Amino acid sequence: MFHRFVCPLFFFLLLPFALHAEAFVLKEEACETKLAELIDGAADYIDVSVYAINNKRLIKALIDAHHRGVKVRVLTDKLQAAGGSSRIWDLIAAGIPLRVHSHKRIMHTKVAIYDGVSVSSGSLNWTEPAVRKNEEVCDIFVNDPGYAQQHQKLFNQRWEANSQEKSDEWVREKTKERENKRQKVK
Amino acid sequence: MFHRFVCPLFFFLLLPFALHAEAFVLKEEACETKLAELIDGAADYIDVSVYAINNKRLIKALIDAHHRGVKVRVLTDKLQAAGGSSRIWDLIAAGIPLRVHSHKRIMHTKVAIYDGVSVSSGSLNWTEPAVRKNEEVCDIFVNDPGYAQQHQKLFNQRWEANSQEKSDEWVREKTKERENKRQKVK
Repeated sequence: MFHRFVCPLFFFLLLPFALHAEAFVLKEEACETKLAELIDGAADYIDVSVYAINNKRLIKALIDAHHRGVKVRVLTDKLQAAGGSSRIWDLIAAGIPLRVHSHKRIMHTKVAIYDGVSVSSGSLNWTEPAVRKNEEVCDIFVNDPGYAQQHQKLFNQRWEANSQEKSDEWVREKTKERENKRQKVK
Repeated sequence: MFHRFVCPLFFFLLLPFALHAEAFVLKEEACETKLAELIDGAADYIDVSVYAINNKRLIKALIDAHHRGVKVRVLTDKLQAAGGSSRIWDLIAAGIPLRVHSHKRIMHTKVAIYDGVSVSSGSLNWTEPAVRKNEEVCDIFVNDPGYAQQHQKLFNQRWEANSQEKSDEWVREKTKERENKRQKVK
């Protein structure tokens, strides 16, 4: 009875757990490489909610993904986005939907979700100094839809809490300011 | 043959995967509560490597753990530790071994390892503003020794890269500075 029925039943019940996530704890350069790989490997969508973004390699990878039809969305912190080292303008110029976090609280996460199955999190902002100058850690989960869904739920809440309209308005204002500054420099 | 030998073999091979980590994605207040629970629940040791530390509840939990015999070690960023809002002095006064990261790079992680089996990571510094004022995310893994070991390896490298001697010297210097300031205020 056990061998013929119960054991095969348990076998198939347990099998999905054996196919559980690959999980990686990565340092700075290795993290940047893995993030670029995850972006390059995405087929459907990438949802990014990262405090500060100016890492050239990751920005290029996001724009390339967008150009090959992957639905990219970026949520980032307003104060960081306005900073001199911010490169969100490249993402906006490429036509990637971007929202700035427009509430009082700082939007401090460093998360991306890839195709609803993989996730990156940890301490590393998507910046050059984070990769080249800091001691950081990334938590990377590949093929873990359950974990990805937990992050997706939070991303969706935060994405919805910041309207596209307000963000676009902010972007238009800042674009004008940047143009004015540029003309003064000339 | 399959039912009698192969199937039970697979059953026992797959069983450990079914007992895999509980993984939680938590926001600010829920994260603070979970971190306090993990600290309170630790029986053997807690290794903390966190950029900024001034959260009263977590500091109290660490000191309580230290007093009941849990081996607590704290690695933190030197610049943050020297800041006006730092509360590392409470940890030092309690006798908890603390090292400040004394290299050029910023020590930006927000990680703790509990008894070698559970881990917390993510974007949340162990501060009051992170919990009360920011949008943050914590990645928490309970009963996941494999994942904990990946973090432990990195913690050990960073702990060893910063000598106790240098840290103690820095603490003595800063303590003098703090005393001088206090006397001036009087």
